[in-house]
Amino acid sequence: GEMKSPSKWTIVVNIFYSILHSVSATTFVSNPLSGLVILVTMLFCDRRAALLGLVATLAGIASFWPLGLPVQLLVGGSVTFNCFLLGSLLPLAGEETHSWQGIEFLIPLAAVLGIFVVYLWSGFNGILARVDIPVLSAPTNLLALLLVYSGYFLQFSHGPELPSLTHDDDNRIHNKSEDTFQSDCNCSISNQLWSGVVLSQGVIFQVPVAQSYIIYLSVFIYSPILFCQEVLGGVIGTIIGMGLDVNGACSADVCNGVWGYNSLLTAAALGGYFVRFNFHSFLLSIIGAIVSGFMCAVLKKSGVPILGIPFMLSTWILLPLAKMPSSNESSKLRCGDL
Amino acid sequence: GEMKSPSKWTIVVNIFYSILHSVSATTFVSNPLSGLVILVTMLFCDRRAALLGLVATLAGIASFWPLGLPVQLLVGGSVTFNCFLLGSLLPLAGEETHSWQGIEFLIPLAAVLGIFVVYLWSGFNGILARVDIPVLSAPTNLLALLLVYSGYFLQFSHGPELPSLTHDDDNRIHNKSEDTFQSDCNCSISNQLWSGVVLSQGVIFQVPVAQSYIIYLSVFIYSPILFCQEVLGGVIGTIIGMGLDVNGACSADVCNGVWGYNSLLTAAALGGYFVRFNFHSFLLSIIGAIVSGFMCAVLKKSGVPILGIPFMLSTWILLPLAKMPSSNESSKLRCGDL
Amino acid sequence: GEMKSPSKWTIVVNIFYSILHSVSATTFVSNPLSGLVILVTMLFCDRRAALLGLVATLAGIASFWPLGLPVQLLVGGSVTFNCFLLGSLLPLAGEETHSWQGIEFLIPLAAVLGIFVVYLWSGFNGILARVDIPVLSAPTNLLALLLVYSGYFLQFSHGPELPSLTHDDDNRIHNKSEDTFQSDCNCSISNQLWSGVVLSQGVIFQVPVAQSYIIYLSVFIYSPILFCQEVLGGVIGTIIGMGLDVNGACSADVCNGVWGYNSLLTAAALGGYFVRFNFHSFLLSIIGAIVSGFMCAVLKKSGVPILGIPFMLSTWILLPLAKMPSSNESSKLRCGDL
Repeated sequence: GEMKSPSKWTIVVNIFYSILHSVSATTFVSNPLSGLVILVTMLFCDRRAALLGLVATLAGIASFWPLGLPVQLLVGGSVTFNCFLLGSLLPLAGEETHSWQGIEFLIPLAAVLGIFVVYLWSGFNGILARVDIPVLSAPTNLLALLLVYSGYFLQFSHGPELPSLTHDDDNRIHNKSEDTFQSDCNCSISNQLWSGVVLSQGVIFQVPVAQSYIIYLSVFIYSPILFCQEVLGGVIGTIIGMGLDVNGACSADVCNGVWGYNSLLTAAALGGYFVRFNFHSFLLSIIGAIVSGFMCAVLKKSGVPILGIPFMLSTWILLPLAKMPSSNESSKLRCGDL
Repeated sequence: GEMKSPSKWTIVVNIFYSILHSVSATTFVSNPLSGLVILVTMLFCDRRAALLGLVATLAGIASFWPLGLPVQLLVGGSVTFNCFLLGSLLPLAGEETHSWQGIEFLIPLAAVLGIFVVYLWSGFNGILARVDIPVLSAPTNLLALLLVYSGYFLQFSHGPELPSLTHDDDNRIHNKSEDTFQSDCNCSISNQLWSGVVLSQGVIFQVPVAQSYIIYLSVFIYSPILFCQEVLGGVIGTIIGMGLDVNGACSADVCNGVWGYNSLLTAAALGGYFVRFNFHSFLLSIIGAIVSGFMCAVLKKSGVPILGIPFMLSTWILLPLAKMPSSNESSKLRCGDL
Repeated sequence: GEMKSPSKWTIVVNIFYSILHSVSATTFVSNPLSGLVILVTMLFCDRRAALLGLVATLAGIASFWPLGLPVQLLVGGSVTFNCFLLGSLLPLAGEETHSWQGIEFLIPLAAVLGIFVVYLWSGFNGILARVDIPVLSAPTNLLALLLVYSGYFLQFSHGPELPSLTHDDDNRIHNKSEDTFQSDCNCSISNQLWSGVVLSQGVIFQVPVAQSYIIYLSVFIYSPILFCQEVLGGVIGTIIGMGLDVNGACSADVCNGVWGYNSLLTAAALGGYFVRFNFHSFLLSIIGAIVSGFMCAVLKKSGVPILGIPFMLSTWILLPLAKMPSSNESSKLRCGDL
């Protein structure tokens, strides 16, 4: 059919929308307004993280043209959220917070990584689409691992005793903000749990507690069910962390949401985003959040950075189950058939 | 078609049958009588292992209803043997043998793990069925790894120097039974080999030598070919262990069947269970048993618990080959076509 | 149709051709003459490596009959290059170079490994063909890892501080040849880069610098584009190695091509062998070479032998992208569609 040439303004507006979708899709929200709220929140906390995320996202969007990827993928942000996530992690490599030193090196790096993310996404998708599972955050995880092990994130590259990426991330947040429960969480289990669940959301976007509430709020406005699922996942992951963490009565990791964010994402993916919420997917998301939490323990003990690997693996394993036609009456199990 | 409502007795009998199939399917035997023999044998050795295996199996069977899995899978035991296997491993975490302390905690844990096994099995199957390979013991391996690394099996969680799960298992067996070749195997190579091959079967069900003969016997009655394949696999794995094990003249691991059980299972899977026995599959099972034995060495050196991982990986890699239409005359290679 | 029985000479000639193809296919050249040149070059450097490679290749070719693999695979050498590669690595296990001691043990080992390679290739292909990606060097990598971790390559089996397989390989080359840039490369970056790129080709066939030029020449004669891609890959990998290698001003690994050969193979695979060379695949091969180089860093830090694993993984991830119909105009992205 014949199509009118779109005006320049349409193009700019559409790219602006897909950037906001990329931001919000990181926590499974498909809403440009939520993306705008999250982006503004991040800009108040760490301007560099938000800026580098945006640079990577723009480079990723530009990569859609040479690769000929379908437009729907661009609009939903399900590809380019990887760009935003990876770009926003880059400032963690520097020694000092809020320092703009080296930014002339970080901006081209973020742009190159944004392009790499989209290329790797297409490659992963070519394989994973055959077995009908989504790529999720695989490109971010792979590229972040490559950066960590090649020494870019210097503080994470101490060989087998690698601390988790987000652990350091959280320490950094604490250094720059007095707004957390760190001091309180020495005292009570309930405060540890509260802080852990709240920051399970914040740690994804590297924001402290107050801003984490804002992000939770923007999730709630988009979908109360998704909000409940994310809180549920955060609670499960944090409780597992509290039960397994043997480093003392009050672990900074637990309070900072490091144990919770993978379970949060898994519960959201299995019980709301990829699958319609019902009793079956509710059970599934609980199981996924538990498996995800224990996978965090495996990675921690092995010295591999956690990143989004537990979320990715547990969702890959359990998502095929969610798509099973279990509501189909004819396939139901009947005892007499045994 | 119209179906009569089955009586309660039919249901109970069918569930009883599928439990026995779950027990015997662990060593690739599809026979309720063999399952009963193995179960009774285990009850004489370690009542807790058998009991927790049964609890996990019942919980796994109950999970078939909400998931809507087909009945055939339940009857064959090819899913729920994972539940029995994982449940029977749980008592290994305790410090003391034959102690019923903490059983009020272990029973609900076994039940929860039984449910998790079936959910993970369905998820794995959703992916692996696309590439036409069976799930095998993947859920058990994954969940046992999660338990080991999260510190549940305390004695296995010393970081990179993790001993193998079954190594400890065997030490335990030795402590509670004088019925083994441990003392003799310092002397002769033939005794080491004999003990290793016999316990390659026993170590799967955590029973000592005498009971291991009984299990071998129940395999022989079910299928002499399967029995021969399992012995062959056990011999190959034990010889590889004897050749590679540098810890001294007589390693406890070799004598206790730790090097043999993965090769035993691989040989049974490739040369009898999944493929009809013929010269082609006989060759394949030898190759599979060798690859499996060397994979044990890799895991041992890497400090990862062996579990059933070598069996699973080598069978996954070689099974597609077994299904190739190599008997089809038209696909045969002809030199003149070169 | 009716076919005449081929004469014995035809069979011998065809097998001879497929051997030469197996040699040249290691560096993606499909030309018996190039294979002959490379083989003769290797015979001048290390007769044992070439001999054991040939034994493994012959055993691999013989395995085609029982497995009923199609003839086309044999002729192209895309399966049996794995046999040649693995066989040629075997002499590295011995303590002394050019010693024929233990050759009566190495020859049957090479033959057995040649058979194993073809069996494993068929198994891998059965799985990977479903997701439409080639097996590449997966059997060599798996079997070499099994040999390394089971202690066959004694010098590589020091637990977590395993040096890379090819690192030792190169030290050996240096010991037996004064023909390298080792002494010079302490001085200038350009010499390091030059030596690294030249030996990125030579290290695959375990030959020093002068012979490496000959192999590059035989690649150039076969296809100038493939030659350019391989040089490009070697340059990218070596530069990454120079940038990341923190062991001093002049690392032996960089000079010896250890950082370059995986990127070289990846660039050849993505921008010439599996995909027709154009601007799109050129970009892709650059990205693949970079990802491959950083994967080398991950393996080095983890203490896992490098082998051809980075090449294999990066090609697997990016090859599906190369096959996308991006030149199809209708699938091109249009801004106005956003």
